[in-house]
Amino acid sequence: MNEVIRQLKDRKSCRIFVKREVPSDVRNEILKSALEAPTAGAMMLYTIIDVTDSGKKKRLSVTCDNQPFIADAPMVLVFLADWQRWFDAFGFEGCEPRTPGSGDILLACADAIAAAQNTVVAAHSLGLGSCYIGDIIENCEDVREILNLPEYVLPAAMVVYGYPSESQIKRKKPERFSIEHIVHQNSYRRLTMDEHKGMQSDLNRKSGFPEKDITESVRALCKRKYMSEFSLEMNRSARIYLDKFNSPNNK
Amino acid sequence: MNEVIRQLKDRKSCRIFVKREVPSDVRNEILKSALEAPTAGAMMLYTIIDVTDSGKKKRLSVTCDNQPFIADAPMVLVFLADWQRWFDAFGFEGCEPRTPGSGDILLACADAIAAAQNTVVAAHSLGLGSCYIGDIIENCEDVREILNLPEYVLPAAMVVYGYPSESQIKRKKPERFSIEHIVHQNSYRRLTMDEHKGMQSDLNRKSGFPEKDITESVRALCKRKYMSEFSLEMNRSARIYLDKFNSPNNK
Repeated sequence: MNEVIRQLKDRKSCRIFVKREVPSDVRNEILKSALEAPTAGAMMLYTIIDVTDSGKKKRLSVTCDNQPFIADAPMVLVFLADWQRWFDAFGFEGCEPRTPGSGDILLACADAIAAAQNTVVAAHSLGLGSCYIGDIIENCEDVREILNLPEYVLPAAMVVYGYPSESQIKRKKPERFSIEHIVHQNSYRRLTMDEHKGMQSDLNRKSGFPEKDITESVRALCKRKYMSEFSLEMNRSARIYLDKFNSPNNK
Repeated sequence: MNEVIRQLKDRKSCRIFVKREVPSDVRNEILKSALEAPTAGAMMLYTIIDVTDSGKKKRLSVTCDNQPFIADAPMVLVFLADWQRWFDAFGFEGCEPRTPGSGDILLACADAIAAAQNTVVAAHSLGLGSCYIGDIIENCEDVREILNLPEYVLPAAMVVYGYPSESQIKRKKPERFSIEHIVHQNSYRRLTMDEHKGMQSDLNRKSGFPEKDITESVRALCKRKYMSEFSLEMNRSARIYLDKFNSPNNK
């Protein structure tokens, strides 16, 4: 295993940071690594908002399902899937562009996340922990106002960074489902009930909880992650963002 | 600059591969690096289709805007944003789940692309080139049939991998727009016409074409990448995928 792959394997999410600023040269290396990511047609269909204003960080920590550690993180980046920049540029150059559509925004989300993941990998190599905050998709009205978002952008992810606390360094990385359930050969294969149970019990065994009740834990997960308020809010808010990319002239 | 960041900087897309198989241990290292990526709630909201069947690769090279190099690539992975696995699991465990919504699928796309980007970084460290194929979003009817996709999945990206040809190794990585246009402080800032011109001329200068006509090149790009058939098809197809995540019980 080479050093790069070892670091990809070691990297885990970090939610508790020590009180230590991220020096500006480190910040810049992280930001520049985003720009090196692959991008569709070399168009760089994203914008990164570097949130340093403590009032804004605090407000985002509330709109993102009330997670105070966001406000305390020394570095907070929002990765916007962005068609506004090109739509405006096309207008400036007299192109009479159509409005951006569903495919355009999915492509821009891919650009934004590839850039985000590069920063996560770069941060780890520099000794910083990081954590994706999917909750940035929630509460579009507030987030639009806080970050001054125009029509044709969508927050694909927020990532917070900082130097990890001792407890976070020691924390075991959560186990992953086994490769045979995640990687399929040539065709998608829906799991049977038995395979689903096997996938879960396999994870529980690797995680050191071989006796964990599968039905109980899946039901708890469904309640906590899928039927919960934040999840319903995320769906409501995401639809409002996506509706902008769904105009009749793209039908 | 450490080794990881140097590799992120060096990595560029590669579309021409030499005739050389990817050994199975290398394939496995790449696949396993995907599974190490960050994932929302540790749910791994993605499935990877490892396309080894030459007939399927050939068909995908056609559905993806007729790019024959896809059929010749020794390794082809499709990264699906996947809610089917969990929707089925919730059903098996008697949870009575709602259907997945717009926020759910955006979160799953982020999971899928973070995993894809890990494989791209891992592949580079192992001497392999790679290229994202956004065109996998096109022609949903055909792609669903080729890959046997159920309702609640969406192809977030395809990536092809192989050992790069000499010409690809020598190819200069395309320059990026400058950081001040991509990274904004605290708020989104729409570029003025002057800033847009500055951004483009800056790129042209860095790319060694300081005299390039901005209006002409932006118009050509708009025509080729945005108003073109493949782009309209991508929007049509993406909408069909997204409509599955837009059911009335998520309003």
